[in-house]
Amino acid sequence: MQLDLIRRLSVEADTKVVLCVLDGLGGLPGPRGRTELEEARSDQLDRLAEEGAIGLTIPVGHGITPGSGPGHLALFGYDPLEYDIGRGVLEATGIDFPLGPDDVAARGNLCTVDTEGRITDRRAGRVATEVTAEVAKRLSTIALPGVEVFVEPVREHRFVLVLRGEGLSPALTETDPQREGVAPLACEATAPEGERTAALVNEFASRARELLADREQANAVTLRGWAKRPELPQMPDLWKLRAAAVTVYPMYRGLARLVGMEALRGGDSIEGQIAIVREHWDRFDFFFIHHKGTDAAGEDGDFRRKSRAIDEFDAALAGLLDLKPNVLVVTGDHSTPATMAAHSWHPVPLLMYGDHVRIDDSHHFSETECARGGLGTIPAKDVLPLAFAHAGRLAKYGA
Amino acid sequence: MQLDLIRRLSVEADTKVVLCVLDGLGGLPGPRGRTELEEARSDQLDRLAEEGAIGLTIPVGHGITPGSGPGHLALFGYDPLEYDIGRGVLEATGIDFPLGPDDVAARGNLCTVDTEGRITDRRAGRVATEVTAEVAKRLSTIALPGVEVFVEPVREHRFVLVLRGEGLSPALTETDPQREGVAPLACEATAPEGERTAALVNEFASRARELLADREQANAVTLRGWAKRPELPQMPDLWKLRAAAVTVYPMYRGLARLVGMEALRGGDSIEGQIAIVREHWDRFDFFFIHHKGTDAAGEDGDFRRKSRAIDEFDAALAGLLDLKPNVLVVTGDHSTPATMAAHSWHPVPLLMYGDHVRIDDSHHFSETECARGGLGTIPAKDVLPLAFAHAGRLAKYGA
Repeated sequence: MQLDLIRRLSVEADTKVVLCVLDGLGGLPGPRGRTELEEARSDQLDRLAEEGAIGLTIPVGHGITPGSGPGHLALFGYDPLEYDIGRGVLEATGIDFPLGPDDVAARGNLCTVDTEGRITDRRAGRVATEVTAEVAKRLSTIALPGVEVFVEPVREHRFVLVLRGEGLSPALTETDPQREGVAPLACEATAPEGERTAALVNEFASRARELLADREQANAVTLRGWAKRPELPQMPDLWKLRAAAVTVYPMYRGLARLVGMEALRGGDSIEGQIAIVREHWDRFDFFFIHHKGTDAAGEDGDFRRKSRAIDEFDAALAGLLDLKPNVLVVTGDHSTPATMAAHSWHPVPLLMYGDHVRIDDSHHFSETECARGGLGTIPAKDVLPLAFAHAGRLAKYGA
Repeated sequence: MQLDLIRRLSVEADTKVVLCVLDGLGGLPGPRGRTELEEARSDQLDRLAEEGAIGLTIPVGHGITPGSGPGHLALFGYDPLEYDIGRGVLEATGIDFPLGPDDVAARGNLCTVDTEGRITDRRAGRVATEVTAEVAKRLSTIALPGVEVFVEPVREHRFVLVLRGEGLSPALTETDPQREGVAPLACEATAPEGERTAALVNEFASRARELLADREQANAVTLRGWAKRPELPQMPDLWKLRAAAVTVYPMYRGLARLVGMEALRGGDSIEGQIAIVREHWDRFDFFFIHHKGTDAAGEDGDFRRKSRAIDEFDAALAGLLDLKPNVLVVTGDHSTPATMAAHSWHPVPLLMYGDHVRIDDSHHFSETECARGGLGTIPAKDVLPLAFAHAGRLAKYGA
């Protein structure tokens, strides 16, 4: 419904919008009673908070901790409860695998089984990525009737399996028993349309076992997160604009491509990414910049490093402001408090700066001030419509 | 859904609720860094903010700029995305035309065409209203098989066409090509049920062209915004009360009538309107007072005049408070920042004063304080249920 409305109201305009996602931005107070963001120097962000407006976003719902997929989909304007990106698709996306509309993808693990076929190590000792690459090459030779088989290494024991062909369905159970001492489970269809695919998967798994029988470690596979590429309305159609993504990590590039952004190459730091934006400034109306350092540090439980990752972004901001975007948004896809060393459900700081922003009386970009900021606490999926409204890209509804 | 719940829970009570809509109330900071509302003196409103509670409303959705129709429907308690009032109906409503349930209405423009029938001026030189009145009289003589034809002047080149008869449908394309140098478009049905109506419209347009052939200017018509009167649940049924509207401009009177309010006549200023309310105080449970000056000044980009229009309302408020309404609501149907000289998507200040209000710690009725007010930032359609709850007119849900 909201997307239908957007399609109807969106208009072209000669304005630029930049969405900066500091992954896992939101935090919790650390030893000194302040959050990572509050400990960061972040002079530029504080100035923008003073001259713009701030608030908080709810990525999925109160109390719901989002993965990277839902977190980003919401920021791209999609209801993350309506549009689901399965694990298999996310993994394939994360290694730049060009998923087709009929492909079924799964996240695979190499595991170790004993002579009875019982799992002795669910992660095959976190075998080296190069080993997985070699094993994946062998598994790619498995021929199944009527489908193409792709096996791509990810990292350590993880790989992606993609089956390509007509009539395949992801309505399948997972083969990972989630414990050791038992054999991988048989794959079963969860709906009639999955039956043929389940048979193919079981054939793949048993052929894999045979092919890897000479190995002591990493000699079997488990498969889960069956998914097809979701049919997402494309940003250029919805918004009548050209959208670009500048990300360092492939998963975010893949997510951006799923919604119709063009993924720009190059830039392996936030400064580098902003240089890429500058280079392509005239070609696009909307830029999505993804900054990973905040989340990586948060997941590692490294409070200080997360603060520093915010400072890095802050220091690079001047280069972005030089371009004079009409609307600049800074937020996160979810919170990753260093004290929790994990994603969390806490609302995420949001900053909007530029044309027609109703300036509030905030002085610092911090969780505490955001909670009473002028933008209020809003669903993350409403951030982009709000930004595009500020950029004159949404016409009036009704007479 | 929400309306069903209201129908179920609403109860009669000996209480009075007054909803004051300052059209386009919300603003943006002007040259001195304060909004129109913040620059206004508004001593009474500030006192009510101090003794009541404030917040912000979202008329339609984040980033969505409402027209007057959706803005008011929301304040009357209707989801403006569910109930759509077409342009034709709004225009007819705006001139007090008594639309029937089977009528199909369109907004018409007189235009000027050359000897080849190509539009040379889409607005016929914004011809005087009296000329349009005369032309409309002529067009009213057009007889179409099986339907009554009404052509009513609005202002300048604008008029309303209403076709009355059984089986008519607004599933029609617009005939305004939105540019000059081409002929008006033929009207086409957008669904099978519109076919007969489309044929009638085309006959009307070609007969109009013949009738006006002697004119050099304003010698043809374009038609758009085809609509039927929406079937809105009526306030007296929903809420078990008698509702009255006191407005100066006919469009708002019409909107109020669409939801079942009785439109009271007289009063051409806010003082006059309040005098009308006093006169009819015993006859109604709910009064809607519409103050237009704020929006008119905002649309003209006149920051100071908008502030003064707020002051005018503020000065008249004592007369209203003398009546001791149980609940008084002051808000707007949307924002119209003078700096934008147009409606906007920004949340709208909301004030609630009276029985059972949980007083917050606000001291001024201003956008900045409203953003952190005790009522929070809420959908506009929830304002009336909230007000009626405070007035003891909503029973408990569930045991």
